[in-house]
Amino acid sequence: MKTVAFLGLGNMGQPMTRNLVQAGFPVIGFDPSSVAQDAAEKQGVKRATSAAEAASSADVVITMLPTGDNVRDAYLGASGVIAASRKGALLMDSSTISSTVTVEIAAAARAAGRRMIDAPVSGGTPRAHSGTLTFMVGGEATDVEHARPLLEAMGQRIYHVGASGAGHTAKLCNNILSGICMAGTVEALALGVANGLDPAILSDVMRNSSGNNYALERYHPFPGLMENVPSANGFAGGFRSDFQLKDMRLAKELANSSKVLAAMGNLATELFAIHCQNGHAGEDYSSIIKLALDLDSYFEGRTTEGATK
Amino acid sequence: MKTVAFLGLGNMGQPMTRNLVQAGFPVIGFDPSSVAQDAAEKQGVKRATSAAEAASSADVVITMLPTGDNVRDAYLGASGVIAASRKGALLMDSSTISSTVTVEIAAAARAAGRRMIDAPVSGGTPRAHSGTLTFMVGGEATDVEHARPLLEAMGQRIYHVGASGAGHTAKLCNNILSGICMAGTVEALALGVANGLDPAILSDVMRNSSGNNYALERYHPFPGLMENVPSANGFAGGFRSDFQLKDMRLAKELANSSKVLAAMGNLATELFAIHCQNGHAGEDYSSIIKLALDLDSYFEGRTTEGATK
Amino acid sequence: MKTVAFLGLGNMGQPMTRNLVQAGFPVIGFDPSSVAQDAAEKQGVKRATSAAEAASSADVVITMLPTGDNVRDAYLGASGVIAASRKGALLMDSSTISSTVTVEIAAAARAAGRRMIDAPVSGGTPRAHSGTLTFMVGGEATDVEHARPLLEAMGQRIYHVGASGAGHTAKLCNNILSGICMAGTVEALALGVANGLDPAILSDVMRNSSGNNYALERYHPFPGLMENVPSANGFAGGFRSDFQLKDMRLAKELANSSKVLAAMGNLATELFAIHCQNGHAGEDYSSIIKLALDLDSYFEGRTTEGATK
Amino acid sequence: MKTVAFLGLGNMGQPMTRNLVQAGFPVIGFDPSSVAQDAAEKQGVKRATSAAEAASSADVVITMLPTGDNVRDAYLGASGVIAASRKGALLMDSSTISSTVTVEIAAAARAAGRRMIDAPVSGGTPRAHSGTLTFMVGGEATDVEHARPLLEAMGQRIYHVGASGAGHTAKLCNNILSGICMAGTVEALALGVANGLDPAILSDVMRNSSGNNYALERYHPFPGLMENVPSANGFAGGFRSDFQLKDMRLAKELANSSKVLAAMGNLATELFAIHCQNGHAGEDYSSIIKLALDLDSYFEGRTTEGATK
Repeated sequence: MKTVAFLGLGNMGQPMTRNLVQAGFPVIGFDPSSVAQDAAEKQGVKRATSAAEAASSADVVITMLPTGDNVRDAYLGASGVIAASRKGALLMDSSTISSTVTVEIAAAARAAGRRMIDAPVSGGTPRAHSGTLTFMVGGEATDVEHARPLLEAMGQRIYHVGASGAGHTAKLCNNILSGICMAGTVEALALGVANGLDPAILSDVMRNSSGNNYALERYHPFPGLMENVPSANGFAGGFRSDFQLKDMRLAKELANSSKVLAAMGNLATELFAIHCQNGHAGEDYSSIIKLALDLDSYFEGRTTEGATK
Repeated sequence: MKTVAFLGLGNMGQPMTRNLVQAGFPVIGFDPSSVAQDAAEKQGVKRATSAAEAASSADVVITMLPTGDNVRDAYLGASGVIAASRKGALLMDSSTISSTVTVEIAAAARAAGRRMIDAPVSGGTPRAHSGTLTFMVGGEATDVEHARPLLEAMGQRIYHVGASGAGHTAKLCNNILSGICMAGTVEALALGVANGLDPAILSDVMRNSSGNNYALERYHPFPGLMENVPSANGFAGGFRSDFQLKDMRLAKELANSSKVLAAMGNLATELFAIHCQNGHAGEDYSSIIKLALDLDSYFEGRTTEGATK
Repeated sequence: MKTVAFLGLGNMGQPMTRNLVQAGFPVIGFDPSSVAQDAAEKQGVKRATSAAEAASSADVVITMLPTGDNVRDAYLGASGVIAASRKGALLMDSSTISSTVTVEIAAAARAAGRRMIDAPVSGGTPRAHSGTLTFMVGGEATDVEHARPLLEAMGQRIYHVGASGAGHTAKLCNNILSGICMAGTVEALALGVANGLDPAILSDVMRNSSGNNYALERYHPFPGLMENVPSANGFAGGFRSDFQLKDMRLAKELANSSKVLAAMGNLATELFAIHCQNGHAGEDYSSIIKLALDLDSYFEGRTTEGATK
Repeated sequence: MKTVAFLGLGNMGQPMTRNLVQAGFPVIGFDPSSVAQDAAEKQGVKRATSAAEAASSADVVITMLPTGDNVRDAYLGASGVIAASRKGALLMDSSTISSTVTVEIAAAARAAGRRMIDAPVSGGTPRAHSGTLTFMVGGEATDVEHARPLLEAMGQRIYHVGASGAGHTAKLCNNILSGICMAGTVEALALGVANGLDPAILSDVMRNSSGNNYALERYHPFPGLMENVPSANGFAGGFRSDFQLKDMRLAKELANSSKVLAAMGNLATELFAIHCQNGHAGEDYSSIIKLALDLDSYFEGRTTEGATK
């Protein structure tokens, strides 16, 4: 069994390492937070005193970090993962960052005789816990195969989507699209409600027609129409609006530098930015419905022409 | 069996009347085009010499007309459907028009002692032929029940969505949302393709993640990834871009007068308008992919940074 | 001197009638508010007990009302302006409404032997008081000439812009454009400020370059850079954001039915709608700067990455 | 008199060097194109065989290059401007690039004991020829003063807008705003024209009202309403749409990383991208009017509902 170094033991890293340990992999972890270190240690993760120490003692190094700058800092530099890891080690970044950063780091890794893949995930903390994450993986096929047992310990669907950076690109494509569909869905619901339709009936109609999308089918933003989704729980849990915004901004940046049409994506991003600015950054991204619909008025039975008087 | 007058024997009206005839309803039809009249007659539709003549001899009058102005002209006035039809007749409009027009006509119908429901359809000509249309019906419950045998002769799913006008509102909500999701999907595909992803693999990833929507699942806009959809056939057949645009403009108008957020819907409408203006009005609405991606370059294997250089 | 009936004695109607009286015109006025009636009477406006009474006793009837529905109600019907006014009377509507409503009313007026022009204004209450309004007039040239002495008593610039309805169209074109330029200007200022530029210097640069527009030159939205504008006064006075929104929605509706590109106009309208919804409906429309910039943070000297964190 | 090295002798660099020579500055120039070198030599610019040679023999080095990558390549590296120039030399970049690139290069220059300012221009080739460019300068005040005699030889207005990078930021703020106002102006004109207004009269009205902006006042996009602007000349000359797009994309990128509202700017950028994609990349940016209005139909007197049927 390969030894795994895992850097970043937060909400995602913690359940991911637990699944690796349960699959039998020796895991050594590091996180700047001692609370996170303690929790991981209890689950069988060996404690490292630094990222470099963890990286130097493993066959595979996995990173799960908040931003592109964190990832760049972790990999590059004199005591970074590339310098500290063993010659031939497989490096795998599961953070959601820009593919341009990945490509840059992967080139540096190759130049130093390391192998690197990007393997961002979808599914959030629930699927991290249940070991059913989706991995979108970019890199050489042999490296992806090498990583497969680890990926399968943490995830259910493993897509090898292309060369280095492709994993991040696929993730960003998906997330900008989910933002567009969610922002569009709340507008369609608001239009129906403002004209007297019952949101449940309207959703049923659209779900069985050409308007169907993930928001209507699995992640309904209108409170009371679906169980076990954030809208059923005051928009707590789920995927925070500011994280959604962060991903959409990365996608927008990639689209801008790729010079592709991104009119819908740009606009959805701005709507999420306004929504966060309006005080909803910490709520699940389906709470964008509040920008389109005055839910308080609705549930108090007050007649409303629509949220924007 | 109730006698049915059917006004508008075009691409939709023709198969719809055939299904009514096959279900055993006596149908009398009218269309200003004698070609359309001839075709309907061959299928067992009795020929009327005017809309008024048809309306005056039936228990139920169904209209399937291109625009709101056509519908208003057909119903109102001295020789219109309301005046010509029998007292107590059930009038049913299946055209896609603004709900404000419907509400106005239905009020006039009621004032004259007629009953009226709005029952626009989705599913296009294929489902009109197979008798599997979806009907979104607005009006009184007793009138909807009265119409149900007719609706079931032509359609598979019958949604009673609310009071008069609600059928049209639901249709417009769905169609603006389908336009948004389609316009968003082609941007996400263009972003992936411009960054080296295979559109089939990317679609597979997004279909199994939060970006999933009808365009990816049932109506893929990228040529060669799905059979029996317009993109497999040079964007012929399906639902014309200018018809999609017409519906989106109706939805936009309704949103404007309802004062609800319609930022995504507005923008998608403008993109379809530009697409039609660029010469693609007659192609299926999934051809909006051409605004985001230079398909010719792609299939010639030319490297492309994206369609917008 | 022609006798003038003036319907609508609010913030605009009151100073307009005063200027007519001062120019020597006999004016009879009506407003449903007795407070408004009292104020007008003090300025020499004869009091009517109803709109019909005022209209029946004048050569010219001027209306200055809040909405298109108000205007339609005022003109049409058994006791409306058209029925009540004298044969050959000149009717003039100075409200800001849709040109489609105007065209409909003007046709009814002509059919009844009255003449009608539309003459909306720009310049707001300050220019109503100083008698320096701008009038955009639609109608027959002879009718416009007939009205000219009245227009000159109230305004400084009189544009005859075309046939019936053209006055309202010109007003809507201008107001959607002013909304676009204002919304764009605050974004450009926010971009500069977030990157450390002094808004005064940046404004000076743009005012002398291709970014120049009315907002920078005469109506600066950034507090402290210009005197005698609403931004110098906590965004009090000026032109309320919800009135700006109302005009932009009329323009948007006209664009939708005219089938012209209105992407920028649509979006600016939605931004003003969100701004109003955020609690700023009653502030001058230049307060849209608050959507782009956190002014409080700026003036407290707090570092800000931009208003949308 | 200081010796000046000038790198980039194209459409802008050529007239700028001529004005420096005429003001008495010894100028040594380099351009990879020998045609450009020849032309400059005829105007009194000394010929260098490489950028490094030019840079090494001057007190001030000015760069005027197409893209940020060109600028980075020119300054950094073993034979770049920073390495090749004299200790204490003043480096000045007048290209339009991202301020983030400038800040990076200026830091490298300072670290190597050089001084650097960014001084992008507005006014295009006409004002480059007449020596009346506007300079937006970022950097230390002493360095800006040092450069002032040179700037005044080439320009009319010199704005010191802030620290390093501020010149580029100001330029981008202005250019995104000019793009927004132009895109908005053509929509307002299209709305008026589609409703029967004369574009000259409408422009006159808006120019004297709150819709006024540079496009209406100095750079009218409607053919035939203004002399000596690109619209009077088939949209030849002026500022190419793809150059405008390039600047807007830089602004968009800056706004995205600054996290400020850029909804209007994003959309205007996409509209220019579509316009370029539609075959108008080489025409002046005011040709965006073609996206809103079918000019051919208009001038043939054909009735048009608007360009987007």
